[in-house]
Amino acid sequence: MKVLIVFAHPEPRSLNGSLRDVAVRELEAEGHEVRVSDLYAQGWTSEVGRADFPLLPPDARLAPAAASKQAFESGTLTADVKAEIEKLLWADVLILQFPLWWFSMPAILKGWVDRVFAYGFAYGVGEHSDKRWGDRYGEGRLAGKRAMLIVTAGGWQEHYSARGINGPIDDLLFPINHGILYYPGYDVLPPFVVYKADKLDEAGFQATAERLRERMRTLATTSPIPYRRQNGGDYLIPSMRLRAGLEHSGATSFALHVEQVEARSPMGETSSVHSTAEGCAATA
Amino acid sequence: MKVLIVFAHPEPRSLNGSLRDVAVRELEAEGHEVRVSDLYAQGWTSEVGRADFPLLPPDARLAPAAASKQAFESGTLTADVKAEIEKLLWADVLILQFPLWWFSMPAILKGWVDRVFAYGFAYGVGEHSDKRWGDRYGEGRLAGKRAMLIVTAGGWQEHYSARGINGPIDDLLFPINHGILYYPGYDVLPPFVVYKADKLDEAGFQATAERLRERMRTLATTSPIPYRRQNGGDYLIPSMRLRAGLEHSGATSFALHVEQVEARSPMGETSSVHSTAEGCAATA
Repeated sequence: MKVLIVFAHPEPRSLNGSLRDVAVRELEAEGHEVRVSDLYAQGWTSEVGRADFPLLPPDARLAPAAASKQAFESGTLTADVKAEIEKLLWADVLILQFPLWWFSMPAILKGWVDRVFAYGFAYGVGEHSDKRWGDRYGEGRLAGKRAMLIVTAGGWQEHYSARGINGPIDDLLFPINHGILYYPGYDVLPPFVVYKADKLDEAGFQATAERLRERMRTLATTSPIPYRRQNGGDYLIPSMRLRAGLEHSGATSFALHVEQVEARSPMGETSSVHSTAEGCAATA
Repeated sequence: MKVLIVFAHPEPRSLNGSLRDVAVRELEAEGHEVRVSDLYAQGWTSEVGRADFPLLPPDARLAPAAASKQAFESGTLTADVKAEIEKLLWADVLILQFPLWWFSMPAILKGWVDRVFAYGFAYGVGEHSDKRWGDRYGEGRLAGKRAMLIVTAGGWQEHYSARGINGPIDDLLFPINHGILYYPGYDVLPPFVVYKADKLDEAGFQATAERLRERMRTLATTSPIPYRRQNGGDYLIPSMRLRAGLEHSGATSFALHVEQVEARSPMGETSSVHSTAEGCAATA
């Protein structure tokens, strides 16, 4: 497979830098082709602005979505954005790797999303009418590809658990996994999360590296988070509300948008689980 | 009162620009002092990087949290960051205003948070031990001040409702309201949200502007979202898990961290409600 890692840490000699190298080596050892967009090293521009849209007259009002649509359709996006779009089209798997800063991605990576996920490419795709609200959430130009996050957090796993004060990690990452990755069509794998990242000793690093290698070896076979497809019949159109009664017992909020799947336990029993994501966070 | 608006839209002639002007005029008419940090106009730098930490030797490994701590303690943060910190200390109320891009804030505003919310100022404050996990979530250097979001979204309100496909707006904003604003101590007011922002006609704008003026007139009296205080006894330390049985019926995930409050209905009856935030989103 072809794998693109978008890397967003300012220091190559960081834990993130080391984990990136572990991932790249394991992927290449498995015979995959790997490319890395190292945003700090590339000097990535984070801000959507007039410079993104050369066709926009200097005195015209900048409406970012309309300008993005025009630039994508006319092939006049800037060279740095076009290069990233080419990489996304090339890759079978996209990995976003970043330290969790203020419960989300660093600005430079948000700026990569804001600028590269153009109108007509990552949103505004397909028919928009009272019958169909576009090709998104499971459909779109990136459908058929896989994506996953590699995230380091300074806090403890307990602080990000179901009752932890920060909120559950899977819900904190929902705006990224569902809103940024599933939206343009990616199948989203459970995230790889490292906790107490600033306190990791050598033994902890080795164990973490081995967990990461295992995730790299299973990129093609890991089950994606079973988000519901927008156009699969579960949602009312155009209100885009989940139809009544489809959810598993007790699900509210983000968990409504994850299908109940049958899971086979190691003991051979079949049980019903809410999501693969919760299980992953517990082992990440 | 003193009010700081941090504004993150590249076009002054946008809906966001118009709403900012409405807010400023109303606040000034009420006798408040207003300052605006217009991030695009200021040419704000979004990326945390080596340039933030002049004391760091060129060959030293950059550990962002440690470097931030050293720079804050030694007074060597960069002039642009120091100026924003001064404004935050000056203001009684902080308003973050932005268009919702990919279910979060634009990169330039995330970069304002990443760079201005320094270690020792917005995090890493207070005793950290097995008995106390710092002054945060309701305590910290910004305690006693108020904060709120002004957000525009292209999608429909239904798409951001309890069963809407994007996820409920209050949960999408939780990483910002709870994780960025409540964390260093702000009392966080329910957000002001505008939906179908790209389709607003003149009548819609006038109605929206009047709703916003009302929110500006009630800045001092609006009840904050009743997030639970970390050090108020609701959480186990150091696991920082919510104690069993404290939550209102059916609450999971982010909603666990909002206290049940008694509300008096317009008919004089007392009823129990989960959060003021849900009600606000319905009227925003």
